[in-house]
Amino acid sequence: MSRWIPIDYNPDDFANRRHIGPSPAEMAGMLKAVGADSLEVLIDQTVPKAIRQAEPLDWPALSEAGLLARMEQVAAKNKVMTSLIGQGYYGTVTPPAIQRNILENPAWYTAYTPYQPEIAQGRLEALLNFQTMVADLTGLPVANASLLDEATAAAEAMAMAKRQAKSKSDGFFVSRDLHPQTIAVIETRAAPLGIRVIRGAAEDLDPSQVFGAIFQYPGTYGHIRDLSADCAALHEAGALAIVATDLLALCLLREPGAMGADIAVGSSQRFGVPMGYGGPHAGFMSCRGELKRAMPGRIVGVSVDAKGNKAYRLALQTREQHIRREKATSNVCTAQALLAVMASFYAVFHGPEGLRAIAQRVHLNAVTVANALRAAGAEVAPDAYFDTITVRVGVGQAGILAAAEQRGINLRRVGRDRVGISIDETTDADVITRLLDAFGIDEPAEAGTVPAIPWELLRESDYLTHPVFHMNRAESEMMRYMRRLSDRDLALDRAMIPLGSCTMKLNAAAEMMPITWPEFGALHPFAPRYQAAGYAEAIEDLEQKLCQITGYDAFSMQPNSGAQGEYAGLLTIQAYHKANGDGQRDICLIPVSAHGTNPASAQMAGMKVVVVKSAPNGDIDLEDFADKAAKAGDKLAAVMITYPSTHGVFEDTVREVCDITHKHGGQVYIDGANMNALVGLVQPGEIGGDVSHLNLHKTFAIPHGGGGPGMGPIGVRAHLAPYLPGDPREDGSGAVSAAPWGSASILLISWAYCLMMGGEGLTQATRVAILNANYIASRLSSAYPILFMGNRGRVAHECILDTRPFAEHGVTVDDIAKRLIDNGFHAPTMSWPVAGTLMVEPTESETKAEIDRFITALLAIRDEITDIAESRVAVEESPLRFAPHTVEDLVAEWDRPYSREQGCFPPGAFRVDKYWPPVGRVDNVFGDRNLVCTCPPLESYAEAAE
Amino acid sequence: MSRWIPIDYNPDDFANRRHIGPSPAEMAGMLKAVGADSLEVLIDQTVPKAIRQAEPLDWPALSEAGLLARMEQVAAKNKVMTSLIGQGYYGTVTPPAIQRNILENPAWYTAYTPYQPEIAQGRLEALLNFQTMVADLTGLPVANASLLDEATAAAEAMAMAKRQAKSKSDGFFVSRDLHPQTIAVIETRAAPLGIRVIRGAAEDLDPSQVFGAIFQYPGTYGHIRDLSADCAALHEAGALAIVATDLLALCLLREPGAMGADIAVGSSQRFGVPMGYGGPHAGFMSCRGELKRAMPGRIVGVSVDAKGNKAYRLALQTREQHIRREKATSNVCTAQALLAVMASFYAVFHGPEGLRAIAQRVHLNAVTVANALRAAGAEVAPDAYFDTITVRVGVGQAGILAAAEQRGINLRRVGRDRVGISIDETTDADVITRLLDAFGIDEPAEAGTVPAIPWELLRESDYLTHPVFHMNRAESEMMRYMRRLSDRDLALDRAMIPLGSCTMKLNAAAEMMPITWPEFGALHPFAPRYQAAGYAEAIEDLEQKLCQITGYDAFSMQPNSGAQGEYAGLLTIQAYHKANGDGQRDICLIPVSAHGTNPASAQMAGMKVVVVKSAPNGDIDLEDFADKAAKAGDKLAAVMITYPSTHGVFEDTVREVCDITHKHGGQVYIDGANMNALVGLVQPGEIGGDVSHLNLHKTFAIPHGGGGPGMGPIGVRAHLAPYLPGDPREDGSGAVSAAPWGSASILLISWAYCLMMGGEGLTQATRVAILNANYIASRLSSAYPILFMGNRGRVAHECILDTRPFAEHGVTVDDIAKRLIDNGFHAPTMSWPVAGTLMVEPTESETKAEIDRFITALLAIRDEITDIAESRVAVEESPLRFAPHTVEDLVAEWDRPYSREQGCFPPGAFRVDKYWPPVGRVDNVFGDRNLVCTCPPLESYAEAAE
Repeated sequence: MSRWIPIDYNPDDFANRRHIGPSPAEMAGMLKAVGADSLEVLIDQTVPKAIRQAEPLDWPALSEAGLLARMEQVAAKNKVMTSLIGQGYYGTVTPPAIQRNILENPAWYTAYTPYQPEIAQGRLEALLNFQTMVADLTGLPVANASLLDEATAAAEAMAMAKRQAKSKSDGFFVSRDLHPQTIAVIETRAAPLGIRVIRGAAEDLDPSQVFGAIFQYPGTYGHIRDLSADCAALHEAGALAIVATDLLALCLLREPGAMGADIAVGSSQRFGVPMGYGGPHAGFMSCRGELKRAMPGRIVGVSVDAKGNKAYRLALQTREQHIRREKATSNVCTAQALLAVMASFYAVFHGPEGLRAIAQRVHLNAVTVANALRAAGAEVAPDAYFDTITVRVGVGQAGILAAAEQRGINLRRVGRDRVGISIDETTDADVITRLLDAFGIDEPAEAGTVPAIPWELLRESDYLTHPVFHMNRAESEMMRYMRRLSDRDLALDRAMIPLGSCTMKLNAAAEMMPITWPEFGALHPFAPRYQAAGYAEAIEDLEQKLCQITGYDAFSMQPNSGAQGEYAGLLTIQAYHKANGDGQRDICLIPVSAHGTNPASAQMAGMKVVVVKSAPNGDIDLEDFADKAAKAGDKLAAVMITYPSTHGVFEDTVREVCDITHKHGGQVYIDGANMNALVGLVQPGEIGGDVSHLNLHKTFAIPHGGGGPGMGPIGVRAHLAPYLPGDPREDGSGAVSAAPWGSASILLISWAYCLMMGGEGLTQATRVAILNANYIASRLSSAYPILFMGNRGRVAHECILDTRPFAEHGVTVDDIAKRLIDNGFHAPTMSWPVAGTLMVEPTESETKAEIDRFITALLAIRDEITDIAESRVAVEESPLRFAPHTVEDLVAEWDRPYSREQGCFPPGAFRVDKYWPPVGRVDNVFGDRNLVCTCPPLESYAEAAE
Repeated sequence: MSRWIPIDYNPDDFANRRHIGPSPAEMAGMLKAVGADSLEVLIDQTVPKAIRQAEPLDWPALSEAGLLARMEQVAAKNKVMTSLIGQGYYGTVTPPAIQRNILENPAWYTAYTPYQPEIAQGRLEALLNFQTMVADLTGLPVANASLLDEATAAAEAMAMAKRQAKSKSDGFFVSRDLHPQTIAVIETRAAPLGIRVIRGAAEDLDPSQVFGAIFQYPGTYGHIRDLSADCAALHEAGALAIVATDLLALCLLREPGAMGADIAVGSSQRFGVPMGYGGPHAGFMSCRGELKRAMPGRIVGVSVDAKGNKAYRLALQTREQHIRREKATSNVCTAQALLAVMASFYAVFHGPEGLRAIAQRVHLNAVTVANALRAAGAEVAPDAYFDTITVRVGVGQAGILAAAEQRGINLRRVGRDRVGISIDETTDADVITRLLDAFGIDEPAEAGTVPAIPWELLRESDYLTHPVFHMNRAESEMMRYMRRLSDRDLALDRAMIPLGSCTMKLNAAAEMMPITWPEFGALHPFAPRYQAAGYAEAIEDLEQKLCQITGYDAFSMQPNSGAQGEYAGLLTIQAYHKANGDGQRDICLIPVSAHGTNPASAQMAGMKVVVVKSAPNGDIDLEDFADKAAKAGDKLAAVMITYPSTHGVFEDTVREVCDITHKHGGQVYIDGANMNALVGLVQPGEIGGDVSHLNLHKTFAIPHGGGGPGMGPIGVRAHLAPYLPGDPREDGSGAVSAAPWGSASILLISWAYCLMMGGEGLTQATRVAILNANYIASRLSSAYPILFMGNRGRVAHECILDTRPFAEHGVTVDDIAKRLIDNGFHAPTMSWPVAGTLMVEPTESETKAEIDRFITALLAIRDEITDIAESRVAVEESPLRFAPHTVEDLVAEWDRPYSREQGCFPPGAFRVDKYWPPVGRVDNVFGDRNLVCTCPPLESYAEAAE
């Protein structure tokens, strides 16, 4: 550097200087390694010319500071009111220590789903706490680690009841006390499964006519009633009882399990998770022990590691869609792990005394309000309630709603002549004063003291008795507990997570910041629209950008996971066919290599799955496809393909597949799982797709949160737009989620990503994702055969390493995956889409240095395999089999044929900064045989250690 | 739990449920252990009745949510404008990843000063990066790890020059180009040292009349000029040249070192640290190599550990005030570590290319503005500048300032007829348009392209050439680097830090949240007062609360460290004496057990220190004291005492000491270091104190930040109030810091703490701090003699463990301290106030469980000492001597007489969650003999490892 040299360097260039890993100089070296003259040449070799998009993405990039300024403008357009609307969403106080140390901490939010238990013991423990909390409060012994929201949990419960009930009826009773959005989602789900939904008041229930029934407790309008008789009657008839419930209410109310419920569902939102204009929050489900194997979603269980020490893991995974495919009974894939963790910590923070105190305060504040209204002559219902009442206001409804809004309060519009009021944790004397003032009551309210809960509905049993809920809960202690758990885990904040198909890219700090601003967090999803003008602007702009990226004409932001998107997309196709008088179309062609959620979603949408073969090169077998499409003929509803394919290849035949489908009257569903290889280069809507979902938590930078939240909005071409999911509060809307825009608040992350990257930055990210994958393939191909290169010898944005040849030496894909933990890496995707292989996706965000470290690790592992193959080491005695190595291994006697040094510090591992897994290899079989899915008693910890 | 049981539990009780560690139930058990019937009884036994305060503290407590709501109200009263005022404070962009992962991350902000290098390698590396950055940019090879602000750094440089210059002159030349606040602080500092300050234009400098001179480069009004001739002339005359400079400017300008400067000082604020209405930010100082041992403040150096591996540590500590006491040449104690770390990461993020690009953009934007103003006929000065210009506006000054404010811009008022404009990193086209519009210029400005920097002032040398500044700077890489460094350190987020006298209490998340809100961060300290109404309200309320707590009548928030507070307090006393015609009073009595900063501050204030003996029980020797006070007679200026004493005892004689002092016309300075034992129980202003400083970073919950920021406001009785430090922009103000309220933004933390605790909560915290200390003393007294119990057999809020008896067996206090690292603890305060002892202060925030873990650890260590004493183990072979144990020890051959297990997992250590120090015991002597205080070249890392 010398004197005045104008330099061409933009320090505000988020795309190329922050998000994209390799620097321009590094890219030059990598291109040399892959043998391409330039990035453009590599892309031309990789992506078929015929499908390249014509126009570049056209919006400019904002700097990080520019983004935050823009977000502030938009935030200011949202009006934060006190929402007493209830209906499943409540004001809550997020303990600041939880906000800072969980929600805003990359150690938690950048983690992946805990499929590799050895590097996930921290979040597994937090999720086990969640399960324990749900099981305890609902009084049902088995709980899962969260579902997408209350409404989908209810729909899942219905499907579960259908499978499990003795009754062979096709009727399902839905109490009209349910939240309207829950009813809407249940009805959407019921139709394709041939379930007849019977709505009515609880007293209308005829158990003989149903396989199950669902009640809300407390009801959407506040009622609480003893459901014991209903449950008993249902059981008598061989039907199951489902109770949608509220965790805070259950701190005072008799628990569903004690009333005979078989399944409980609900939302844990009000346990410290901001409303966020609809989400994300963790839905929950618990059930009787006999039903546990039928429960959808993930379940954390307790097992042991290779040394017999207690270790957590995901249990009963064979239930899941990636195993069962079209035989799966649910397509649930993503959970809401991060939010479940938050809710669990809320319970750990407050403990049973604190939760009970909050519940009592909420209840007595509701009593205060009800008493004051009654004293002023208002007609208030019901007599027994927890936190919610309705007031008959007759023709004054609009006036009261407006008067309340003038005082900064949103009430619920109920029918034509009532308003609903739900008290929550944040309701204080000031809110009550303003609220009563809106009703013209200006004398101070007398504090309620006499509960409005009938004696027989008061809870008798203890809850949260496990020691974890009985720490003394000082913030120092809580902070350290959160830190300890996060330190046990390996997330993106420490290392690359090269999971094929999962697109674990940077979740930038600037993208995460706005979501915890109160202007975005404190909005009720059913608040009047004018209060959410900022959200509307953000969502609309994001939709426009996604349309430009995909070539589609319209988007629905409602699906709150990728699998939800598939389901919603297929429902949209179905609705379209029906509207065209093509209701008979019910066959869905799916390649054998598809994600397991594809057939599962098709099954849920009531379609018949026909599997299409792969050609030897991994592509769709075009002949087989054409045959099967022709055979389906006017029954062909849809084809589901993934592009580039799940094999990581840009198939040349994609236009042909679409053409054939369309020729037979079918619609093309292009799974957006691999969108990270397309953005800016190829538009699915342009190459023949009619619908796609986008995994915003993959391609569009929403963090994985340790297994959720996700978002799976769907884009459609214009002809399908009228059939997209509608408002979940409306009958017959075809709603798939509880809230109109799903988990609205995290849409801001994807919007921020698009704004900071700009059109060109997004396109460059795609190119570099492809470069990184090809670089890995080139560097590793001498050690590991690369499956499925494209016709021009290039992989797309991921590559599959074939490890099957090592099987003959006894080396399993598991051995390699666990050995990578010793190197400080999360394993690539294992045995999918091809058993016995590893699929690697580096994404554009990884630097060359980190990728090289990964390559070093894999090459060293290959050498260890060679040692085994050439009989220098027995596989049972090899570092591969003993992997991962723990500190316990170092401390213990060492009688292995390799040194401690070799075991713990293989090439590529950090020395000073090494990640140490807290447990050795986890025993999966033991855990499934001895299922424990709530916190084990402390003694068992000691036992396990023995 | 059963049916409706109203429970008396307030989940919003921050004081008792979050801040205070032990739960009520735990406290009952602890009281039993200490043999006190109740907490009140214990306090009565501990705190002399005669000094207990009459009235309880009277304000109510806010919940966390209530606090944040209050903070939002206050924030809304601040008006965030674009401040182009300059004068040492500039708009800057904090990279969001730095904000989230450093400033908002307890792993960084709760750390202590890195005196224990083995558990501080992460922040030591970050501070070494800071030193390297400062050394490189200023072109001077030795830099320290930050100072309090630019003005105090300049004053320190003056004092350093006085000691080091060959010239015996008492004159010091201060260029009138210096920022006014820097001049004010220099003049305050010069007076008591007998330094004659000569102000003038550079051309007025007569080198023969001075021992040193300071210039500003660029000058406060923007001028840049070559200082080579001035430096040469000064050297010729045996005087030293000091340059106050700007790091961003130095990315383009010739560096001070290249012009012959001996010392450079400045502020690193604009490297990503928000202005915060004055602070905190990191001041810096660098110097020629020959001067390194004279440099004040902390210096990070490179050494090796017991295995010969590279290890960082604080170097040359024998220079510091705690060693040199009244012979110290500076009382600098706290640095601004957290802010220095942020600034260093800003440089790592941007690298030399990025910094240069930012500097160029800033400069060319300034050119754009200057050109446009000149084109419109304005008189703009100077011709050569970096980012700052002034415009002659004549009688239009007020009008222009107002017009700019109307457009959201603050300009600097310069003299009576000019305005100053300083361009910064955040200045964009929109700001320029609004700015020019204020001058009536409405045509678009033509972008400047021709630099206004003379050829000979363009920088020729490279900077930031070390690899750490040449990562590729992708956010993933940066995030992981920050994580790795923080993982190497042990901070409050993982374990108790039982440092006596340091009061390492909880820094609650809710207290930390507001400080990063832009309404608090983006305010310029010299912005018009009406824009800071929120700050005014917060500071005033905090002052009132501190007055109530201390019994004083007025406070100055200006001192930005504890030692600054001492210095400011003594200056206040001096000014008072002078005003009363008692200018001869210059003797300061200080007990031998005082903090080293006490005598150092007295020396800086120009007082003569007379040391008072201790009685055998550790109290002040009252006879000796009375004698010396009498002897001083009308020369007695002040007495400095600490209460409770630095021995951790409530002395009964405190009122007597104060009375004797007052009788002789002296003033009593009560050091607030131990205020955590007083709040709510005893008011220093009521028991006889005239002045005290409070360490807000100890007692009032400001985090230590790994060695700063701190705040040391002083409270005084009414008669001293007129003599408190004034506005630093005014001549003769007696200012001690650059900004009127010091590090204003962190005052919010202390305010938040007071608001959430409430008066009773603060008092209870004091009681529990005393309980915790007495519990430790009781539990450990059988193993370690407790020095200095009070007259009633109680310690105050800390206790001293006497480890001197173990010396005969060869066990040192260092051995015990390092062995505690194996247990996952930071050591207690070592060898202070008594050599060979450990002083333990648990604070009220630690839970019984954590305290018990600490006790377990110390008892186990005592057993290990017994093994040595009884000759079962040789000390050289003992786990004590090999401590701390690292993973390297586990991996290596093990030839020790104890097992790996015993070495690494002593009782009290966590098993799964163990903290592993990254290096073994650090060699201090090697590091001081081979001082390296910038990042060593990479090869040296390899060498060290060999």
